[in-house]
Amino acid sequence: MDMLLLPPLLGVVGLCAAFVIYRIVKKHPAGEGLVTEIADAIHQGALVFMKREYTILFAFAAVLVILLFIGFQSWHTPVAFIVGALSSALAGYIGMYTATQANVRTTVAAADSGAAEALSVAFFGGSIMGLVVASMGLLGLGSLYLLFGGDPEHAEAIHGFGMGASTVALFSRVGGGIFTKSADVGADLVGKVEAGIPEDDPRNPGVIADNVGDNVGDVAGMGSDIFESYCGSMIATIAIASTMSLVALQQLGAERSELMFAPLALASIGLLCSIAGIALVKMSAAKSPEVALRIGTIGASAIFIAAAWLVIDSLGIHANVWWCVVCGAVGGALIGLVTEYYTGGKPVRTIAEGGETGPATVMIAGLAIGMESVVIPVLVIAGIIFATSALLPEGAGVYGVGIAAVGMLATVGITMAIDAYGPVADNAGGIAEMAELGEETRNITDSLDEVGNTTAAIGKGFAIGAAGLAALAIIAAYIETVSLHVSDFSLEINNPLVLMGMFLGGIFPFLVSAITMRAVGDAAFDMIKEIRRQFHEIPGLMEGKAKPDSGRCVDIATQAALKRMVLPGALAVFAPVVVGFGIGPAALGGMLGGALISCVLLALTMANAGGAWDNAKKYVEKGNLGGKGSEVHKAVVVGDTMGDPFKDTSGPAMNILINVMAIVSLVIAPLLS
Amino acid sequence: MDMLLLPPLLGVVGLCAAFVIYRIVKKHPAGEGLVTEIADAIHQGALVFMKREYTILFAFAAVLVILLFIGFQSWHTPVAFIVGALSSALAGYIGMYTATQANVRTTVAAADSGAAEALSVAFFGGSIMGLVVASMGLLGLGSLYLLFGGDPEHAEAIHGFGMGASTVALFSRVGGGIFTKSADVGADLVGKVEAGIPEDDPRNPGVIADNVGDNVGDVAGMGSDIFESYCGSMIATIAIASTMSLVALQQLGAERSELMFAPLALASIGLLCSIAGIALVKMSAAKSPEVALRIGTIGASAIFIAAAWLVIDSLGIHANVWWCVVCGAVGGALIGLVTEYYTGGKPVRTIAEGGETGPATVMIAGLAIGMESVVIPVLVIAGIIFATSALLPEGAGVYGVGIAAVGMLATVGITMAIDAYGPVADNAGGIAEMAELGEETRNITDSLDEVGNTTAAIGKGFAIGAAGLAALAIIAAYIETVSLHVSDFSLEINNPLVLMGMFLGGIFPFLVSAITMRAVGDAAFDMIKEIRRQFHEIPGLMEGKAKPDSGRCVDIATQAALKRMVLPGALAVFAPVVVGFGIGPAALGGMLGGALISCVLLALTMANAGGAWDNAKKYVEKGNLGGKGSEVHKAVVVGDTMGDPFKDTSGPAMNILINVMAIVSLVIAPLLS
Repeated sequence: MDMLLLPPLLGVVGLCAAFVIYRIVKKHPAGEGLVTEIADAIHQGALVFMKREYTILFAFAAVLVILLFIGFQSWHTPVAFIVGALSSALAGYIGMYTATQANVRTTVAAADSGAAEALSVAFFGGSIMGLVVASMGLLGLGSLYLLFGGDPEHAEAIHGFGMGASTVALFSRVGGGIFTKSADVGADLVGKVEAGIPEDDPRNPGVIADNVGDNVGDVAGMGSDIFESYCGSMIATIAIASTMSLVALQQLGAERSELMFAPLALASIGLLCSIAGIALVKMSAAKSPEVALRIGTIGASAIFIAAAWLVIDSLGIHANVWWCVVCGAVGGALIGLVTEYYTGGKPVRTIAEGGETGPATVMIAGLAIGMESVVIPVLVIAGIIFATSALLPEGAGVYGVGIAAVGMLATVGITMAIDAYGPVADNAGGIAEMAELGEETRNITDSLDEVGNTTAAIGKGFAIGAAGLAALAIIAAYIETVSLHVSDFSLEINNPLVLMGMFLGGIFPFLVSAITMRAVGDAAFDMIKEIRRQFHEIPGLMEGKAKPDSGRCVDIATQAALKRMVLPGALAVFAPVVVGFGIGPAALGGMLGGALISCVLLALTMANAGGAWDNAKKYVEKGNLGGKGSEVHKAVVVGDTMGDPFKDTSGPAMNILINVMAIVSLVIAPLLS
Repeated sequence: MDMLLLPPLLGVVGLCAAFVIYRIVKKHPAGEGLVTEIADAIHQGALVFMKREYTILFAFAAVLVILLFIGFQSWHTPVAFIVGALSSALAGYIGMYTATQANVRTTVAAADSGAAEALSVAFFGGSIMGLVVASMGLLGLGSLYLLFGGDPEHAEAIHGFGMGASTVALFSRVGGGIFTKSADVGADLVGKVEAGIPEDDPRNPGVIADNVGDNVGDVAGMGSDIFESYCGSMIATIAIASTMSLVALQQLGAERSELMFAPLALASIGLLCSIAGIALVKMSAAKSPEVALRIGTIGASAIFIAAAWLVIDSLGIHANVWWCVVCGAVGGALIGLVTEYYTGGKPVRTIAEGGETGPATVMIAGLAIGMESVVIPVLVIAGIIFATSALLPEGAGVYGVGIAAVGMLATVGITMAIDAYGPVADNAGGIAEMAELGEETRNITDSLDEVGNTTAAIGKGFAIGAAGLAALAIIAAYIETVSLHVSDFSLEINNPLVLMGMFLGGIFPFLVSAITMRAVGDAAFDMIKEIRRQFHEIPGLMEGKAKPDSGRCVDIATQAALKRMVLPGALAVFAPVVVGFGIGPAALGGMLGGALISCVLLALTMANAGGAWDNAKKYVEKGNLGGKGSEVHKAVVVGDTMGDPFKDTSGPAMNILINVMAIVSLVIAPLLS
């Protein structure tokens, strides 16, 4: 059998596994009465949002397809773009569709069958997302590689797949991020602070929107984010291998085609390891959720590292390439651990204690911690660059960076499963609260949710590291590709054009953060006014006798998300085109470098400051430093609210921003001569 | 007469002018009774702090001198370092000494003689700082150039001057910044928020420390900041000219010695123009303060641009070099205007309106505005790079960047004068309030202070732009110098070492921001506890019958500043040494690039967000959106408190951080082979 058939075939296997898990989830009872009603509202709200989001996305993508066709005068790249965009959209849609069915089943399982069963359902709900992301990536990219990979004239068309995936990801992440946080901030500020009712109280017109937001932001948005890093790292590694000098090839002792196929082979094995990991979690469901999830991740990684050795060995590639895989896998875990420390350890208590002197000191402490938290993850990235370039012969070092990125992302099936478990558990708790299912059920969902918060923080750190490394590999591939077409291409920092590009690149992360943060602020403002209006104008609402008009709030969040996601998207896609064609490939190279550095730094700062603020609030709410309702609590709530757009809107947008800029540059690289 | 004698001679002329102005200020009455007492406490507090600061600085500098001597095996560089450090320290000391004498005389002039006279005194007080900074730079650097400039073997020793100046600047800026904001935040949080007494109320034990802080932070700190950019830009331009290829020299149609002397010549003319500008302000003192100050700046710039033409022409240099001067001068003004918009225009009202939904939305809006504000200034810097490289023949482009930086900074005498006027006016108001001098006097000092706030914001923007451009020139000089010693030196972005360096460089700005912000948070916490203790334990304090123990508060701020300034200082000085010798000059080059980008971006974000929060608070305090005491006011006070360390501690530290890293690299460049 042709080895090239393996990745798409394994993709199909993964999809089958996902379908089996979906059938299992569906068999669990979906409850009745109020529970079903609420779950339905969330499910429908999420679907309506995605439908409208994808409509705009479709228009935007259509324009890009036409431009790509005009630019390349061939159908290869546009078709790859369409396949990439569809794969990403489909992965996001399926993941979210099933997550919004797993949430209510988790609630019912918690009420009827206890903690172990609830964990199973929630985790299976998330697993579908993880498996679909990995499988769609292998199926889509693997098929394209099968078609174009062997044909030197059209191999570059595969880059279009990455561009399609990244474009969808950008809109999903930014749109989803604006939706989720405008709903969250709005519902919290009026509900918790002004009206003094608990989170997820059914009287609050904003809570349905808030729960919808968890799904469109944390499930669909996160899924497409990881999807594009996953595919981006493979595409970049393929591109680097395809442009590698003959000298470097000889030193690695491998055929070009083997080096090109290696990332797909590693990811294929990774998918199998993820399925094994998911089975491990299921088998450990009787243990505490934290332990079960950890067994699954560590188990999958360990099997993967061992299996990767066999892959590298059977392809006959330099053994040190395996060490690059290890660097990536270990690096990803390290960055996750650092994130866990900064969003869960002593730093969180420091922020909470800052609340004793008011919200200002909470803000200062949180920002300081966020900024400090960049140090180790960035050192890890720098270490990976150093190690891979030391491991491989000169001229092949960037291939090692690509392989490290693939190694970090190969077990994405299980990583994403655990990450998507978080919002499912969160939603399950929300439904239990809204349907007033009693304290016992709520306690179970709370314990699931708590673990979900930790895994979400780790997942975010991991996503940033992976996105940074993938972007790095894509940028390296861009440079190699341009060098093929422009004979004396040089990216010396002291070239004024490169330098200028670096400054220009540094602007985008700050500008996109500003735009998205302001979008959340503005939309939350509208949301607050609407919720206040409903509390005033709907008679009997506060007494629980009348129903809030949740649809209006969903609509406000939807409108804001759709309207405000276009500018950042357009900026990210068109800036490289304008700079590349307008000033030249050297300025574009500098721009990617500047954008990469500041994207990674900002993403880490925002994610960790936001996570730490969130947990500082939870720490106080557990009764520390005066507990709920105290002055300290009010102060940490301010921190949490600031942290919301940080960690869930602007921060995650950075991951994709740099990848979109890099992949667009890689796509247009052959034209820049 | 030898032309090379001109810069030091003009330096002496400038010092004489400063002395004349000092005599004029001294002739104004210094008040009596309580006024003198308060002024004396501020003056003494500032001097004591500086003495202790300089003691630590002296120890640190002694270590560096020894290391430099060991490294270079010659006395040239260490001596230049000592001269640079002494010049900077002296400039800071003189400026602050006279500023703390001008403040009380401004108060008395406001009480006795009215607004015009008060403006004169305050502005003259600031002018001394401006003139001393420019004069000490010309005297010190000019003398060293006279000694070493013509000797190719020791020309590089001049870089030591910049390193000395930058080291002093880093400690002054960071130490002063921590001092001023821990006092400010502490005094405000207890005084205004808890005790409900006005700012600068004499019963508050923290207000003397707060006023001392204005001087050590905004006068001495700012002075040494600008001093190092000023000297750094000249040193870098000299270094670039001294390493320029013969081809580039021919295309510029000039002798190497003329290109090397040009920055000193431009700065010399700039000093004369500054003196003219100061005279213009004095002549316009009868007009509103704003108009008078603007006439002075614009007048000085216009004369300078015209005079620069004569200098370039008489040196026989390519006429396009003059256009580089124009780029720099205009660019500096543009960045200042953008800062003015973001810290004074519509953005400020947007932030204030955010207060209607609480402090969290104030924070979100302010950070978004800070991040957005980077766009135009960075575009200006990128534009200057592009324009200068287009104006000059290939290979000479970086010389143009250096000249643009010199052009921006040449009229530093008047720019600094206007900037230092701010804290003098602020202090004058503080003294009037503390000595309870009545509403009329307070109104005059308020109007002076208000203008001072605008000029301070513009000055900060200008300082960031100038520091960024100076650092850029120094980095270029570093690359040229290493290229002289390492034959195949290349800084390609796709070189893994360069890339790794870029990531490493990006860490420092975030880490130093985190350290300094946390230092302010911790020290403010101690300050708050001490002030609370005094309010509780000193009987009759709140009734105004007993005196607070201000000395204790000054001591807390001093201790915190001295203890916490060492780590950032050591990081900035030793990181380039460790990376340069440990990994190599390519990694160091990448590190400087990464640090430059993130320093400039963070500096702009922090300065402008901080300035905008400050003015949003003032906007509400003027009676808008509910005015003082309203919920909106409480919300914007939180923003202002967060903004304090942003704009006055961490933000300004960025300017110097990048310059220290760059100049240390330039100094060690000849050893990195």
